[in-house]
Amino acid sequence: METPSAIATPASPRVQVRRGAARGKYQHRDVLQILDAGLVAHVGVTTPDGPLVLPMAYGHDGAYLYLHGALANHLLNEGAGQEICATVTCVDGLVVARTPFHNSMNYRSVVVRGAAQHITETPHKLAALKLITDHIAAIWDSARPPSQTDNRKTLVMALPLTESSAKVRDGDPIDEPADVEGPWWAGVVPIVTRFAEPLVAADLQGNPNPPASLAGLAGCRPEERPRLRDGPVEP
Amino acid sequence: METPSAIATPASPRVQVRRGAARGKYQHRDVLQILDAGLVAHVGVTTPDGPLVLPMAYGHDGAYLYLHGALANHLLNEGAGQEICATVTCVDGLVVARTPFHNSMNYRSVVVRGAAQHITETPHKLAALKLITDHIAAIWDSARPPSQTDNRKTLVMALPLTESSAKVRDGDPIDEPADVEGPWWAGVVPIVTRFAEPLVAADLQGNPNPPASLAGLAGCRPEERPRLRDGPVEP
Repeated sequence: METPSAIATPASPRVQVRRGAARGKYQHRDVLQILDAGLVAHVGVTTPDGPLVLPMAYGHDGAYLYLHGALANHLLNEGAGQEICATVTCVDGLVVARTPFHNSMNYRSVVVRGAAQHITETPHKLAALKLITDHIAAIWDSARPPSQTDNRKTLVMALPLTESSAKVRDGDPIDEPADVEGPWWAGVVPIVTRFAEPLVAADLQGNPNPPASLAGLAGCRPEERPRLRDGPVEP
Repeated sequence: METPSAIATPASPRVQVRRGAARGKYQHRDVLQILDAGLVAHVGVTTPDGPLVLPMAYGHDGAYLYLHGALANHLLNEGAGQEICATVTCVDGLVVARTPFHNSMNYRSVVVRGAAQHITETPHKLAALKLITDHIAAIWDSARPPSQTDNRKTLVMALPLTESSAKVRDGDPIDEPADVEGPWWAGVVPIVTRFAEPLVAADLQGNPNPPASLAGLAGCRPEERPRLRDGPVEP
């Protein structure tokens, strides 16, 4: 049974959308839809030198966001057991108002806050690595399976999606009524991201045809790519 | 007089690229080129509730990165006078290796760390707002000039670009020699972002033709859009 978006509430005050509160979305399926569409997460950790934000690949299973890195990964080690923030943004357009004060961007974003935990148990770690690998395209099953050494050298962290919220801006600029009658142009310049045809590695020695999961991407927007799950998970 | 990239060094240890150190770039012009190409910054601040990362519009003048928001902007108020981190990422492709362990993304990113300061002096504030407004396309001069109220309601912050570094990954996957001889596909799926034709606001009452700075964007990649500066600033 779903709560209508209009009355869904944030999981905690710290993931409540403050500016443009009407654009906040707190349904879990709104969060998952944006996580499905996104390509990288910007992950913030607190370090003795101040906050640090780095772009990272990610995957999710509807309940956790998964991140990975090399064993020595500075950011993942700083973040282990600590509060982190992972933000995923899809930029959709430049919103041009009559006055710069009302200019904006159209976008879909998700903010997840919580304590990230290392995953050490091998089956869970492999399942998480498959989710990260397959997030953009399902390529895990057509690749060489990971060796024990690969597995040992890789750090995987799980961030619960419990405290997450989405924010979406779309459509036209919203100008002051007096400005609407003025001579200034207003509208939106869409910004569109698409996958292009796969390029074969220069050192490829075998079959140059990419796996089906990659061949089908060309021309797609990220939000159009086939998903691993049939529908949104409702934990 | 320029230092060759190969021997340029990070401004401070905290902006040194640690993982994939050979991909770190410390020339100021490398940083500016990526800031020019980027669309939004992911800005991280430390809050009593842990780190918070939000996507924000930005501009720069070669010496400072500028951010703006409403007077009540939570993130900007948390960040005032404090250490913050602004990260700009352009995603260029999915790098598909023979094994998931060597999968990667092609991207260009910049990390800026430092203490952000409010700009209160009106001429500097207006100059910064013009840089933010004109970052994606030069639309400040064709819009209604900001009123005193607009100006009063807007918070502008400057983050010095002194402590910044770039990281760039491009090209093919790098696999283990033994894997290169295997049957697995390897290559890159390019990810391409472009501006589309401007869409006129439904409430537009005047001339539907967008200003020249917007009409010329259609079909361009972000890195192809005309720049305000003739060349990189070398502070």
